[in-house]
Order: sequence, then structure tokens, then C-alpha cells
Amino acid sequence: MYRILQDVNSPKDIKNLSNDKLDLLANDIRKFLIDNISKTGGHFASNLGVVELTIALHRVFDSPKDKLIWDVGHQGYVHKILTGRKDKFTSLRQIDGLSGFLKSSESEHDVFNAGHSSTSISAGLGMVISRELNQEDNNVVSIIGDGALTGGMALEALNHAGSLGKKFIVILNDNNMSISQNVGSLSKVLTKLRSDPAYFRLKEDVEKVLNKVPCVGKEAVKAIQKVKTGLKHTLIRTGIFEEMGFNYLGPVDGHDIQGLTEILSTARDMNDPVLIHVITKKGNGYKSAELDPGTYHGVSCFSPDKGICKSDKITYSKVFGNKLIQMAENDKDIVAISAAMPSGTGLTEFSNKYKDRFFDVGIAEQHGATFAAGLAKEGKKPYFAVYSTFMQRAYDQILHDICLQELSVKLCLDRAGIVGNDGETHHGIYDISYLSTMPNMTLLAPMDGIELEGALEYVNNFNGPIAIRYPRGEVKNVERESIDLTYTTDPEKFGEGNDFLIVAVGNMVIRGLEIVESLKERNINGSVINPKLAYPIKNDKLFEMINSYDNVYTLEDNIITGGFGSNLLMECTGKNMKFNKFNIFAFPNIQIVHGDVTSLYKKYGLDTKSLVEKIFEDFK
Amino acid sequence: MYRILQDVNSPKDIKNLSNDKLDLLANDIRKFLIDNISKTGGHFASNLGVVELTIALHRVFDSPKDKLIWDVGHQGYVHKILTGRKDKFTSLRQIDGLSGFLKSSESEHDVFNAGHSSTSISAGLGMVISRELNQEDNNVVSIIGDGALTGGMALEALNHAGSLGKKFIVILNDNNMSISQNVGSLSKVLTKLRSDPAYFRLKEDVEKVLNKVPCVGKEAVKAIQKVKTGLKHTLIRTGIFEEMGFNYLGPVDGHDIQGLTEILSTARDMNDPVLIHVITKKGNGYKSAELDPGTYHGVSCFSPDKGICKSDKITYSKVFGNKLIQMAENDKDIVAISAAMPSGTGLTEFSNKYKDRFFDVGIAEQHGATFAAGLAKEGKKPYFAVYSTFMQRAYDQILHDICLQELSVKLCLDRAGIVGNDGETHHGIYDISYLSTMPNMTLLAPMDGIELEGALEYVNNFNGPIAIRYPRGEVKNVERESIDLTYTTDPEKFGEGNDFLIVAVGNMVIRGLEIVESLKERNINGSVINPKLAYPIKNDKLFEMINSYDNVYTLEDNIITGGFGSNLLMECTGKNMKFNKFNIFAFPNIQIVHGDVTSLYKKYGLDTKSLVEKIFEDFK
Repeated sequence: MYRILQDVNSPKDIKNLSNDKLDLLANDIRKFLIDNISKTGGHFASNLGVVELTIALHRVFDSPKDKLIWDVGHQGYVHKILTGRKDKFTSLRQIDGLSGFLKSSESEHDVFNAGHSSTSISAGLGMVISRELNQEDNNVVSIIGDGALTGGMALEALNHAGSLGKKFIVILNDNNMSISQNVGSLSKVLTKLRSDPAYFRLKEDVEKVLNKVPCVGKEAVKAIQKVKTGLKHTLIRTGIFEEMGFNYLGPVDGHDIQGLTEILSTARDMNDPVLIHVITKKGNGYKSAELDPGTYHGVSCFSPDKGICKSDKITYSKVFGNKLIQMAENDKDIVAISAAMPSGTGLTEFSNKYKDRFFDVGIAEQHGATFAAGLAKEGKKPYFAVYSTFMQRAYDQILHDICLQELSVKLCLDRAGIVGNDGETHHGIYDISYLSTMPNMTLLAPMDGIELEGALEYVNNFNGPIAIRYPRGEVKNVERESIDLTYTTDPEKFGEGNDFLIVAVGNMVIRGLEIVESLKERNINGSVINPKLAYPIKNDKLFEMINSYDNVYTLEDNIITGGFGSNLLMECTGKNMKFNKFNIFAFPNIQIVHGDVTSLYKKYGLDTKSLVEKIFEDFK
Repeated sequence: MYRILQDVNSPKDIKNLSNDKLDLLANDIRKFLIDNISKTGGHFASNLGVVELTIALHRVFDSPKDKLIWDVGHQGYVHKILTGRKDKFTSLRQIDGLSGFLKSSESEHDVFNAGHSSTSISAGLGMVISRELNQEDNNVVSIIGDGALTGGMALEALNHAGSLGKKFIVILNDNNMSISQNVGSLSKVLTKLRSDPAYFRLKEDVEKVLNKVPCVGKEAVKAIQKVKTGLKHTLIRTGIFEEMGFNYLGPVDGHDIQGLTEILSTARDMNDPVLIHVITKKGNGYKSAELDPGTYHGVSCFSPDKGICKSDKITYSKVFGNKLIQMAENDKDIVAISAAMPSGTGLTEFSNKYKDRFFDVGIAEQHGATFAAGLAKEGKKPYFAVYSTFMQRAYDQILHDICLQELSVKLCLDRAGIVGNDGETHHGIYDISYLSTMPNMTLLAPMDGIELEGALEYVNNFNGPIAIRYPRGEVKNVERESIDLTYTTDPEKFGEGNDFLIVAVGNMVIRGLEIVESLKERNINGSVINPKLAYPIKNDKLFEMINSYDNVYTLEDNIITGGFGSNLLMECTGKNMKFNKFNIFAFPNIQIVHGDVTSLYKKYGLDTKSLVEKIFEDFK
């Protein structure tokens, strides 16, 4: 089935292939990716873009002695295929299966874990210095995308690396393609590559693509392009890499294995920092992904022939985006900010409808948070929508610029709780803890999609720093007699059972209701409280309700340390309330693995069945 | 006494002065700064450097309608003097007195609070966008130092601001002076300024200064210079500001009010983003501060005639630095990293002695943390010494790159706890909370200087992520019969009293001992435990000790939420331990004001006397 790939099980096998076999290997890999990811889902377009680059890297360098450090890591599938893991691809992103990101515990060829953006140059520089101190002679190669380069820490790292002047290879994996022809001072060796007509064809192609993607939203695409290309464009045109102490090689066609091999060999033989500018095409080799790399960035199962059937599921992101548009119609102060994720956070339509009130800051959560603070200081209502896990990047800015100043920034934490297949680097299980350490913070956790809508109205009228967290994926709604969007922060109680009480945060309310239902069958009668606020915990009605119970359980999709249960216990103890049992159900503060959400809840004992048994223990 | 200054009480008064009075005003301000800061202490050299710039800004712009945003904010004294606060300078940095930083609550002229570095461009851009949306016409001016420009978020913000192309003035306050003459494409208007011979004289001066400052350490100075100038130098030489969409004006002599006024007026009349490059001299006008701006950056009281008498107090930073040098002699894997604070963190001597094992990464805590992770991955022992409050910047990198990967990075948190006069933006009162949310983290909190030494040996031999926190200032040691540096993480109990138990973190042990002593006089007998580990809390001996008490009090110089007491309570409750009283003594999760440490402890009820009374209540 795969003529060449079937015999490639390690980097050594790639080095032994004759040149004429390499393109066939690339074809095999592409076919392998399509065959497998269409079944398992996963990151798709970015992996199709680095097939040839990865082959060339393993042909020129000697992994794991030479260190290949992939930024973000969702483009590491080809690297995994070529380093002995192809047989495990059926288990990709499943529990106990292959990780969707680089992972040291999985292979010695994954030298640094990744997940969040813009870390590879810093990590690589650490390895460079270690090599120098040990007087070793291996190569260190950090591969970073043009998007990741907008992250401030990548620039901090370039600045430091350039000043140290040690042998270090940084590869700029540039899939944006709107690069100025007016490139900086290039190495003589590679002038010929620059005049390669393939490069200019690519440039034309992308313009065509951009006009063909109505579903992504032209305005959103333009906004992303603007920030994403701005810095890169500038860095290259001004020759800043050279000024910073890097030799600049390229641009080189990222789908020409021979050209890549030559340029990488050149870099390998140099003794200073080198930046190689590689032009790749996201989705290369699969037409639909080439035309719409955004949609094919991360995919669920799809048909290799027919492509992705767009889902019409209502997600929390969609509810958020729609509600924001609706509110913005009557409130001209509303402004929306995204950090390179307008589509993921449900802001595409907003960005089209309110062009002048939408800002994509790039992969720059730090700047985004303080930019929002500046807007709020002048009376605007900035909504900064970011995945919970990426909001971590702005911890200091939220604390220092937003909370200490009591500014009315609205932080919208998408994908709060466990996210499933993306795994440990992406779970949004820290936000209750980290936001609870911030003065003046208010954190809402709506229990379902309907409450999310109502809560957003509350957020819009709120004075002071406020955050709202909601999970990844399809909306589930608690059954109601009628829909009422009125929202208050008073706790809401479900049921009349007096044997035990579950105080459940956000979408855990639904789990709480299932537990109560299940224990009813054993004649143990409980109730559930939706506290509305995950932080602060100070509602008198809440304490009154809790105080009438002997057995209290808290339930949250956050880590246990510093989370809601922990804070509630502290408040209750401060009021000298005593209980027979006070149990906190939350994720342990360890790495939480990847896998489907249902399996993960089960693994960590937070599924309905496990929790029913745990509570039942207390009534035996 | 101050001929001109006495009549200047608002920005309007500056505008009414004739040109020939301006230099006299500058002289007055400089004298005022020397007179006052020599008595109160405070930030000194950086304020002397911006006297003329601040006068010019208030002459050209119309504050507070025009927004002046000072980065970091420790150079805002002149701005405070000129905006009606000169009479309050005797209360500078004291409790209920003038803040040492910009503060909105203090004056409408302080439009954005500051304290941490590199935030001003982001905040300014938010105000620019707000103005555009409101169709207003005020000016926004962000003033950022060349050091702050190495912070990644400043670069993220420049990238975004440049792409938006709105009217926005950024002033690069460049006090480093080692700028290449090969400046990028300059505006025609200002070519004459560039050829001003004063600029080249300044350049010579600084070289002389650098060779005259033995106490700071030439190697440290060189290392700082290297990173600090690297990026700025490059940005300017390559004309990257222009490429990013900023008009570049300058360089201009920052001590020539007339020249500054002209260039600021030019910028005010432009409709695009402008960056003005201003060359200032830190400490300008006070000889000792000019010669040694590092020592005169932040000062205690000093004699205007004789200057600062260097203190020979042993600080925690000094203990740390000395111990690290000692350990590094026998352990070649030890590497030290600083984020632009080698002197403040006690690393100056290390940087001189182990040049190749010391790295100053600039104001770049994010990069610093992941750089350390890369070093640790390759078997080095990186010590990253950062003030607790600045470590917040690396929250995500510590979690994502260090903790999830279980890498043996050693985080050294200097100035943990309240820092006193620097106030709310600088208190290190969040670290126990934020580090406790990180998987695999171990956090040590030595109770005194002697334990700090022993604990560092433990840190050096530890496998996995570890942090150690110690306070600002002079070492206090618990009285001992003999000094033994042996360190274990087993809790240490002081006293035999059975009436109550205080579990006190770090230097709070000393306070705990005072409380026990004091209550003994009232026939209430308690004991104190030093738990050694602030996180995780899992030592069985600790729980055994605690379990034998009915009244337990925890004591920490951290906020209450997610702190040690909260975590201990959760652990004890998880073990179904019950108490008559369990009280957590910690700082409330609100803004903690500035002032001397003693007054602050009193204000928040954490001084010995207040705590004695609180505990006594439980025994009435």
C-alpha cells in the first residue's frame, strides 16, 4: 500500500534512501496522513505542509543526537511517522494512544514537549548553551511557524540567541506566503533559490484561495493576515534577523526535498546562528485543505473523497459569538478581541459585521489583555475571547493591568474544563484557580448554553474585571419548563433532597443532576446548587443553603488546588460552619492525559457512575 | 527656594512659562528631587533622567485630555511634581502617602497604572482605538524605556499598532546610549538633530562611566548592556520601526527642552504612528548617580553631599548569591539566569566569577523560564532568580514548559511576601497561590537566612520543578543553639504548648514564635510548626502534629485565596480531620497598598499584636 513508507521505521532508513525515492516517500506520507486522520481526526493541514521539510530534516540531521524542536507541535505527525510511530497512528489522540503533540515520554526523538505557541527558540537556546558548556557538537534546530513568531517570547528568545552568537538553527516555517519580494540581505549561496519561479506561483495561489473561502469570512482572514504577516514581513524585509546576529538563508521552497536538503546541509556546516526561511503550503497535496486550510487545520473524521461535512452543531463558541453580535447592535461600546483564533472562539461573524470593532492581535495574549485594559480605561467594553489554556499567557497582565486597576475587561474563556483529545497542554483546568488569585475578579460559570446567553447580558452590564468560562463543544441544556434568559448571581437550587448537597460549577450541574437522579433509586435524596459565581464566593443565600446540609460535595472541571471547592471550604470554615462530610470532586493536580472527554472523566473518577459510588460510600 | 517651581502647580502653568524659564524649572525640579528623595528614598536616577522630557511633554500636550502613559512608572516623579502633587512628596512611598508609581486613583493625570514593565504601548493602543471609535481627537503618548522594549509584550504591541496605522506617539526613552550611528531612514525634518554633537559626546561619556563602576561589576554591566542594546540597536539600525508602520523621529537630546518641544510638536501634528527616539542620561545632574546609575536607581535616604553609604547588611539576596557561588564551585552543571536584575537578585558576583554560566535574558521572564527548561532538559541545573512579582509573567511557561514536563528548573523567588514601599504592583503575595496550581511543583519557604542556605543545597540535589521563596531585605535568623545547615522537608516544631498550634510559612515562623511567647504571659500555651514545604502539603508527620490540636492557625505572607492555609485546610478536610477552630491568617485578596512593611502588617492585622488578640479571642 505504501511502497516506500512501509520500510521506513527510523530516521536511519530515510538516510539510506536514494534521492529518487524521496518524492515517493512524501507521496506515501501524504496518503498515510489522509488515510489515518480522516479516520481518527487530528491536525491535518499543517502536517500536510511539512512533509518534505520533515523528510529533509531527518535526512540531514541525526535525531535524537541532533535536537529537532517543533514549536506548538501540532505539525509533528510526519516526524512521528518517520521516527518509528506509524503503527500507532490508529490510536492518535485517543486515551493511552499517540499524543497529537510532541511528547518526550513517547519517543527520544521528541526532545521538548509542545502545545502552546512560540516556545521553541527559547527551549532550543537552552539546549545550545548546554551543548556549549558540555563541549559537545550536536545540532539544535528549532522549527517555528510565522504565526508563532508574533508571540512576544519568540522575539525575546531571538534577541537573546542573536546576542550570544552560538551555532543554532532556527527554521521559519512560513505558510502564509504573502511575503514581500523585497527580501533582506541574502546569503550568496541561495540567491538562485529566491528566483525560483515556484515561489511566485505560490504567492498567486494564495491570493486566489483567499477569495475562494467565503465560509471563513474574508474580513477575518484579512485581519489575521495583517497581524500575522506584519511582523514577519518586516523582520525579513529589513534584514533584522541578520542584524540580530542570525545568518539568513532562503526563502526556499518547502516542498522541494532536494533544495531543502542543500540548504539544511549548508546551515549545519555553519558555526553561527542561522535562520532558514522555508515557504510551505498548508494542506499541500489535498485540494480541499489547500483551498481552506483554516477548516482543515484540526479536523474530526472526514471522507477522503468528499472532505469535511460541516457540522451544524450549536457550540458554546457559537452561542457566545451570536450573543455578542446581538448585544453589539445596541451597544456601540462593545469591542471584540481575539488572539489569532477568531474562528475557534466564534468571532468570525462578528469580525465581518463589525469590522472596526474587531481586533485580532496575533498570538499575543499578553498584549491582548493590556490592550483590552486600555480600551476599558476609556470606557469601551472589550471582550477578549481566548481558550482557557492560552489565557494563562496573560496571567500577569490580567492581574497587574486589569484587576489591580479594577478595569471592566470581559474575559471570555472558551474551552474551559478538559478539552479531550488535545490533552495535557490544552486542558482548561487551571482557570478557576488562577483567576481566583486575582483581586477584584468575578468569574461566572454558566451551567449550559441558555444560561451562557443570559450571563453575557450580565457581563455586559458589569462594572469591574469579569471572566466567563464555558466548555468546548456542543451545547447541552438543562431541561426547563420555559426559557427565561434573566440572570442573577443568586445561587439556583435543584431538587429538595436533604441527605446531601452537590455544589456544582458550570456544566458540572448537569452531572450533579444525574448523580441525584441515580442515588434517588437507592433512597438517598440529594439536591444540586448552581452557585453561578465560581469566584468570589460570598453570597449569603448560598451559605444558608449549604449550612442546612451535613454532607456537602463540590464538583468542578478544574484542578483541585485553589479551585472552587477549595475556596468554598475556606469560606465555610471561616464562618465556622461544620459538616459531617465535605468532599471536593475535581481533577487532581497532575498531568491530565489526552483522550475523549467521556473516557477522561471516567479515568479520573469524575463520571456519574464513579461519583455516585463515592457518595454512596458515605451513606453505607 | 525653588524660584520657578514654586509657581508651577499644574500643566497649565508650564505652558505659561517663557522659554528662558524652562531650564531654570528643570534645575528646580532636579534640586527638588535631590532634596526630597534623599530624605524619603525612592527611584532616583531614572527620574533625574526625564526632567526635561517631562517638562516638554506637558508643554506640548494637554494632559489629561492627551494621555501620557509612562511604562513601569518609576520615572513618573517629575510628572507628579508638575501635576499638582509636589507638596505631597514628603509622604512618598509611605503608607497613605504618594505612590512611587503612576496611579489613577491619585490624579487624573495618571491615566494608566504601572509597575511591571513593557505595558505602555498595549495600554496606549487601547486608548488610541477608543479615541478612534469615539471620533475624538486627543493624543496618546506612551513613554517606554529601552530596557522595557526587550519585553515581548512591547514587541507584540508595536506589531499590532503598526498594522493598524492610527495616530499614536511612542517615545523611546533611551538611557543606554550605545546606539549605532548607522540609524535607519529618518524623517527629513529631524536630520539636523541627528548631527547634534551633543549626542556623540553622550556616547563617549557612557563608555567612561562603564569603566568607572567597579562595584556593579563589569561583567554584569556588559551582560545587561548586551541584551538591552541588542534589540534596540537592531530595531533602530534596520529602520524596523518605519517598516512596522511607525514614523521614526530622532534621535533627539533628551536634555534639550527646546529640541524636545519641537520634535514633540512635529509628532503631535502627524496622523500616523510615530516613534520618537529620545536620548536621556540616567541620573543626569547628580554626579554620583550619573557615574553609577545602577546604585542610584532606587535608593534609601542618603546625604545629598556625600551620596549613598553602601549598606553592609546581609540580605536574603546576598545569602542566595553567595551560596550559589559556593555550590557552583563543585557543581559545574549550575547555571544562573536573571531577567535584567543581576544586582537585585544577588547574582552580580556570580556573573563575574562564572561568566560562561551566567545569562541575563533582559526583561524577558517568559523566555527566561523556557530557556531554563531547555537547559534542564539537557541535564543542566538552571537557577532562574526573579522577584516574585515579576515571575508572574512566566506563569504559563512555568506550567507548560517546566511543570508538565517535570523539568528540574530551580526558580528562586526573591522579594516574596510584601515588599513595602513599592506597593501593590510589586508585592510578592501571589506566588504560593499560583505555584500551587502547577502539577509537580515543589515550593520551599525557608524560615530564615540560615535555613535558606541549607534549603539551597536541597534544591540543588532535587529532581523535578522546584521553587524557593524568600523575602526582601535583611536576613533575620531564628535563635539556635548551634548552626546546622542540614535541611530536610520534615516539619520542625517549636515549643510544647498544647492549647493552639500555628503553622507558619517561611519568615512568618518568627512572627509565630513571638505570638506564642506573648500568649504564654496570658497562660495560653501554643506551639509553632515550620512546615518547610509551602507546596505540596503531604507530609504525614505534619498531619500527625496538627491532628493533636483543636485550635489551628496558619500564617503566611501571601494572599488568602489558594494559599498555604487554604491548601492545608483542604488536605486536612480530605483526611476528615476536625477542629474546633481553623483560622487562616493571610493577606486579603484585594489591592495591598504601599508603605513600610511594619505599618502594612499592622494595617492588615498580621502584626504580632493583632494576631495575639485574635487568637486570644478564641480562648475567652
